Amino acid sequence: MKSYRKELWFNLPGRRGFVNITRDVQQVIDEAGIQEGLVLVNAMHITASVFINDDEGGLLGDWDRWLEKLAPEKPYDQYRHNDSGEDNADAHMKRSIMGREVVCAVTAGKLDFGPWEQIFYGEFDGRRRKRVLVKVIGE
Amino acid sequence: MKSYRKELWFNLPGRRGFVNITRDVQQVIDEAGIQEGLVLVNAMHITASVFINDDEGGLLGDWDRWLEKLAPEKPYDQYRHNDSGEDNADAHMKRSIMGREVVCAVTAGKLDFGPWEQIFYGEFDGRRRKRVLVKVIGE
Amino acid sequence: MKSYRKELWFNLPGRRGFVNITRDVQQVIDEAGIQEGLVLVNAMHITASVFINDDEGGLLGDWDRWLEKLAPEKPYDQYRHNDSGEDNADAHMKRSIMGREVVCAVTAGKLDFGPWEQIFYGEFDGRRRKRVLVKVIGE
Repeated sequence: MKSYRKELWFNLPGRRGFVNITRDVQQVIDEAGIQEGLVLVNAMHITASVFINDDEGGLLGDWDRWLEKLAPEKPYDQYRHNDSGEDNADAHMKRSIMGREVVCAVTAGKLDFGPWEQIFYGEFDGRRRKRVLVKVIGE
Repeated sequence: MKSYRKELWFNLPGRRGFVNITRDVQQVIDEAGIQEGLVLVNAMHITASVFINDDEGGLLGDWDRWLEKLAPEKPYDQYRHNDSGEDNADAHMKRSIMGREVVCAVTAGKLDFGPWEQIFYGEFDGRRRKRVLVKVIGE
Repeated sequence: MKSYRKELWFNLPGRRGFVNITRDVQQVIDEAGIQEGLVLVNAMHITASVFINDDEGGLLGDWDRWLEKLAPEKPYDQYRHNDSGEDNADAHMKRSIMGREVVCAVTAGKLDFGPWEQIFYGEFDGRRRKRVLVKVIGE
């Protein structure tokens, strides 16, 4: 069994945003030289997500409005986490809905995906450097 | 390390529905001939889920009503995704809550499950052929 | 490829609660003697979660209030699942939001984590013995 790891770094200018990282993940699989196995892609921060969905601009805006409805940023004082001087309790909840990680099959050296599957980094508390871990195992 | 992949196909008659696929996944593990490892089961479409929960009829109806409350199908014009001629923005959100995939342990050739765990395919935009990927790795 | 499995047992005194199990999972990896691979950590019950987030007391209370808002315990008769004599339909939904499992990278024998990542067992229907499965694969 072979294994390979690489970190992807992000620094989004706004508080929230989505980045399509599908090509970056495929490139890590290429570097790993693994043909058959699994790839784990996870946010290394607890106010960010990695998830798979459609790369459609209207939909990405819909996510943002929908998550804000389910776990509103403001008022800040609705969350006890924010008593400690933080303002990002909502980001922890938004990330819970969207998920920390995806696990994908690697088949014949490629992400084994349906036609519309794209991997996204979801940022809910940006404006600083944050990381995603890609770990590939297989042969 | 061995690996094995198989697709399961679905064509649900309604917009939404749930299918217990536990036996199908176990059958793929049997075909793979893998005794110890992991199995990934993921929707290959972005308006469908694979998740693990209880196979109880009342509860399956509860999911449907609950998801419709958190991410309503209508009015269609509340979602910018639907401006493009689609009507399934809600299905993308419902799938986010329920999840794209499960990863299960394979031990002594069997799904290593608690007493009530059952794997479901969750359809949120049906009436067409859609797929689930089962990838088993191990020895 | 090596594999190793162990169950962690819980019996929380209240209906809901969170337990940090990061050290327990690391100990299972140590016992497994695996340096490079993946570890799956999943609830074996369908009214409990395993998830990764911050170990901050204010935030843990925020989760509890937030989940109760999205999937209220009462009134019990709002859920058809509860017609069968159960009172825990809300617990099935809360666990859907928080997730059944996490998959983590193992690198140089350690959980390959960002600075704040902690693994939690999330109980939504406690007061009885319940289990988490830890399965490590790798070399």
